[in-house]
Amino acid sequence: MDLHGKSFVGGVLCASGGRQFHATSPLDGAQLETEFCEAAAEDVEAALELADAAFTELRQLGAEERALFIERVAEEILGLGDKLLERAHRETGLPLDRLTGERGRTVGQLRLFAGVVREGSWCDARIDTALPDRQPLPRPDLRRVLVPLGPVVVFGSSNFPLAFSVAGGDTASALAAGCPVIVKAHPAHPGTSELVAGAIAAAVTACGLPSGTFSMLHGGAELAHQLVRHPLTRAVGFTGSHRAGRALFDTAAQRAEPIPVFAEMSSLNPVFILPNALRERGAAIAEGLKNSVTLGVGQFCTKPGLVFGLGGPEMQTFAAALARLIESAAPATMLHAGIRDAFEKGLDSIAKVPGVVALATSGAEPDAERTQGGAAAFVTDAENFVQRRELHDELFGPFTLIVNAPSAAALADVARQMTGQLTATIHGTPEDLAAAGELIAVLERKAGRLLFNGFPTGVEVSPAMHHGGPYPATTDARFTSVGTAAILRFARPVCFQGFPAQALPPELQDENPRGLMRLVNGQLTREPIVR
Amino acid sequence: MDLHGKSFVGGVLCASGGRQFHATSPLDGAQLETEFCEAAAEDVEAALELADAAFTELRQLGAEERALFIERVAEEILGLGDKLLERAHRETGLPLDRLTGERGRTVGQLRLFAGVVREGSWCDARIDTALPDRQPLPRPDLRRVLVPLGPVVVFGSSNFPLAFSVAGGDTASALAAGCPVIVKAHPAHPGTSELVAGAIAAAVTACGLPSGTFSMLHGGAELAHQLVRHPLTRAVGFTGSHRAGRALFDTAAQRAEPIPVFAEMSSLNPVFILPNALRERGAAIAEGLKNSVTLGVGQFCTKPGLVFGLGGPEMQTFAAALARLIESAAPATMLHAGIRDAFEKGLDSIAKVPGVVALATSGAEPDAERTQGGAAAFVTDAENFVQRRELHDELFGPFTLIVNAPSAAALADVARQMTGQLTATIHGTPEDLAAAGELIAVLERKAGRLLFNGFPTGVEVSPAMHHGGPYPATTDARFTSVGTAAILRFARPVCFQGFPAQALPPELQDENPRGLMRLVNGQLTREPIVR
Repeated sequence: MDLHGKSFVGGVLCASGGRQFHATSPLDGAQLETEFCEAAAEDVEAALELADAAFTELRQLGAEERALFIERVAEEILGLGDKLLERAHRETGLPLDRLTGERGRTVGQLRLFAGVVREGSWCDARIDTALPDRQPLPRPDLRRVLVPLGPVVVFGSSNFPLAFSVAGGDTASALAAGCPVIVKAHPAHPGTSELVAGAIAAAVTACGLPSGTFSMLHGGAELAHQLVRHPLTRAVGFTGSHRAGRALFDTAAQRAEPIPVFAEMSSLNPVFILPNALRERGAAIAEGLKNSVTLGVGQFCTKPGLVFGLGGPEMQTFAAALARLIESAAPATMLHAGIRDAFEKGLDSIAKVPGVVALATSGAEPDAERTQGGAAAFVTDAENFVQRRELHDELFGPFTLIVNAPSAAALADVARQMTGQLTATIHGTPEDLAAAGELIAVLERKAGRLLFNGFPTGVEVSPAMHHGGPYPATTDARFTSVGTAAILRFARPVCFQGFPAQALPPELQDENPRGLMRLVNGQLTREPIVR
Repeated sequence: MDLHGKSFVGGVLCASGGRQFHATSPLDGAQLETEFCEAAAEDVEAALELADAAFTELRQLGAEERALFIERVAEEILGLGDKLLERAHRETGLPLDRLTGERGRTVGQLRLFAGVVREGSWCDARIDTALPDRQPLPRPDLRRVLVPLGPVVVFGSSNFPLAFSVAGGDTASALAAGCPVIVKAHPAHPGTSELVAGAIAAAVTACGLPSGTFSMLHGGAELAHQLVRHPLTRAVGFTGSHRAGRALFDTAAQRAEPIPVFAEMSSLNPVFILPNALRERGAAIAEGLKNSVTLGVGQFCTKPGLVFGLGGPEMQTFAAALARLIESAAPATMLHAGIRDAFEKGLDSIAKVPGVVALATSGAEPDAERTQGGAAAFVTDAENFVQRRELHDELFGPFTLIVNAPSAAALADVARQMTGQLTATIHGTPEDLAAAGELIAVLERKAGRLLFNGFPTGVEVSPAMHHGGPYPATTDARFTSVGTAAILRFARPVCFQGFPAQALPPELQDENPRGLMRLVNGQLTREPIVR
C-alpha cells in the first residue's frame, strides 16, 4: 500500500514533527507498514491560519457548490476502493463486512448533509419586516440567519474508523455548516486516516476550494490540546473517553475566549425490563440483549451496559438464559491493545466490587495474540448499584451488569441515581408502559434517546435522530453528533438590521430565491415577501 | 410602600440569612425604606429542591396552560400599578416614562413568549417513520422533540430593572421552555424585584402550579456562585459585567457536571462611518450618534462606544459637530454610585492613555449628590487603538471614542483586531456599501447584529432579533437573550424510538393535534401523518 505517513496541512504534506510511530494490527500484533510522523506545533499554527483564511472564502460559496463539494468527498472515498477497507481492517481488526457497511454509512451521511445544505431551511432564516409607522417607535427591518462558526477541530474516534473519524459525522456536519475542518487523526488507525484525508484533499482541489478548507494532523494528547487552545479554533467535535473529552472541555473553557466542545464520551445505556414483557418474552429479550452487548465486540457507545429488572424467579430465568448466551459468545478482536487491556482490567475491578457476582463469561478463552476480549455478565442488586459509584462508569467492551430491583418504584428510584446517558431502553407490554409513567419521566431527564422494545446499538443517521445526552454522555446535552441536526453545533445567528436587498445573503432576500422555509413576521412560510 | 424584604423560596417568604441591606436611591443618595435580608445557603438548597420537584409536574402541563400562566404573570405585573414604577424610579433613577415603556416591553415580551408556546413549532419536532422492509436493516420509528432542561438560575441586571430582571427576558424564555426559575435579585433594586416576584408568585398560585416553579433570592456574589454550583441547576442566564459573567461561567465549567451559562457581558458596538455617508449627512449621523450614546445615560449594552471613520477634514467636521452635541448634553443620574464611580474612573483612565485626546464633555458639571454622569467623547487613531488594548474594554456610561483610520482597508484591519461584539453598525451610501465587502465580512465574524444606517440602541423583541455575539459580548455566540429564539437556550432534544402512540407527547403524535410545523421524513409540514 502506498502511504506517505505525513500530515495534511491545507494542501501540503508535512512531516516536520518529532515522534514517529507505526500502526499495530490488533489481528496479530504485527507492526503495519509505513512510518507515520506526528505533526509539530508549527503545523497546528499553519493549519489554523490556512483554515481561517479559507473560512472567509467559503462564506462566499453558494449552497449548491458546498453541497457538490460534500458529495465529491463521498465519491472520492468510494474511489479509494478496497484498499481503504483492507487497511482499516488491519488497523482496527473490524471485519470487512462491518467496514463495508460503515463506509456506506459514511458516504450516506455525507450525501445526507449535502441534501440538508441544498434544501437550506436548517439556517433558520427569520425576517421581521419594517413597520415604519408603528407607535411609539418604528420597527426596523430585521433579518436573521445562521452562519458558520469558523474553523472546527475534529477528533477521530477509534471505534468508527470511517463514520466518526476523518470524514465522519463531525467533519460532515462542520463542512455542511460552512466551516473549515482540522482533524486530529486517531493514532490507532493512521493509515485509514491518511487515505480518507487524501480523498477530502482531492475533493477540495477538484472543487477549486481554498486549501485551508481541510487539514489532518497526526499526533497525541499534547497536539490535541494545542489545537483546542489555538485562538483561531472556533469549536471542537470529539468522540471518545470521558477522561480525554473532559480534558479537552476544560482546556476550551479555560481559554481567554472559551469555545464550545461537543464531546460524546460515556454512557451505560440502561435497559429496563418490565414484568409483563419479562414474563411473555424473557428469552427473546435475553437473545437481543446478548446480540447488542456483543455487537462490534461491545465497542459501541450505545452498548447496553446495565440491565434492570424486578428480582425474582422470572429474572433468574432471564439471567440463566443470558448466561448461556454469553458463554457461547466467541471472544473477538478488539480495536487495539489499550482498549483490550482496559476492558480486562475493568472486568477484574468489577469482579472485586462487594455484592457483585459473576454471571457468565465466554466459554472460549480470549486469544491475547489476537487482542481478543471475551463477553462477560455480572449481577448485583439495586441498593448495591446505587451505593457503588464505580459501577456507574462505562466499561467499553462486551460486558453488561444485571441489577435486580425489589419493586417497580425502586426502578424509578435507581434510575434517578444514574448519571446522564445517551440512551435508555424499556422493554414492556402496553400494560407495563401505562404503569411506568414515573420511570419514563425520570429517564427523559437522564437520557437523550428513549427506546421501547428495541436495543440501543444501531444509531440511525436521519433527521429525527438524537445522539447526545446529559453529562457525562456528552458535554452539551442540547446537541446531537449523529443525524442532520448535528449541523446546528457549528453555526451561530447573525441579524442584519436595515440592510438593503443587494447586501443581504440570498437566504434573507425578499424573493426567497432558495425557496427556504422561513419565519416571516412570526409565520413559517416558503412564500416570497411581496411589497 | 408595603414591602417585606424577604426572599421567595417557592411560595414561602424567607429571611433566615445573615446580612441585611437597604436600597439607596441614586436620585438623592437617600436610604430607601424596608430592610432586605439576604438568603442563606439553606434557602438555595430549598429553592433548588422545590424547583426540581416542580419541574416534573411542569413537564405534564399542556402548552395552553403554560401560555396562560405566562400571560397571567404579565397581568399580575400590570396589576401592581404605579407603585412598581415609583419604586423602580427611586431605586434606579430611571425616569418614569422610560420605566413605563420598559414595563410595556416586559409585559409584551411575556405575551410574545406565551404566543410562541401556544403556536408550539419552536420545539423542532422531527419524525422519521419506521421502514420495516428497508434493506439491509429496517429503520425504526424515531421521533425527536425539544424538552425543557430543568431548573434555570437567572441573574437580574441593574440596567433593566423590569425587562432584564426578575420577570425579564431570561425568566420569560425559561418559563416558556417549561423550566422552573430561581432568580437572584439585583441588590440595586431589591424592592422592584420583590414586587415583581410577588406578581409571579401570585400567578403561580392563581394557575395552580407547584410552588417551586419560581423562587427569588436576595444576595451577593457568594450566593450567586452557590446557585450556579448547585447540582440541580441546569442552566444560567445572566446580563452584567464581563468580570462577573466570566466568574459564573468558570464556576459552571468547573462543576462535576458542567452546565451552560448564557452571559451577556460586554460590547463596544462599533460604528463605521463610510466616506460618502460622512460627506452627505455627517451632521445627522453626529446627532443620531450623540442620542444613542447618551440614551439612558449610556447604560445600554448596545451603546456605541467606538466610532470609526477615515481621518481628514470631513471627519474633523464630524468630530466638531459631535463635540458641540456632547457639550450640550446634560449630565444625568446613573443607576447607582458604583456604576457612576466606575464610569468616572474609566474616563480618567482613558484620558491618560497615550495618543488619546479628549474631544468634549458635558458643559454642565455632574451633580455627585444626584449620582450624575456627564457625557464624554475622546479621539485617537487606528494604530493607537489597535496597540492599546485597554481601549477595547467596555466603559458603561455616556462615552464614545472616535478612531481615525488612514484608509478603507485600514477600517477592515482594525475591525479584525476587535474582540466580539453584540452589534456593529455601518453608515454608508449604497456606493459605500458596495465597496465595503471586506469590512462586512470581518464584522459578520465579530458581531451578532449588523446595522446599516441605524443606531444599535433600541433592541427589538421579535422573532428575528439576535442579541448575542462572540466572546466577550456573550459566553455563547450561538444564542440570543432577546427575542423569541431565546427559548432555545433552555431546551434539549429527546428522541423516542419505537414508542407506541399513546406514550408519545402530543407534539410527536401522528395526528399532529397541535398543528405544529414538523420535519416528517425530511419534509417540513403541518400535515398529520396518515397510515
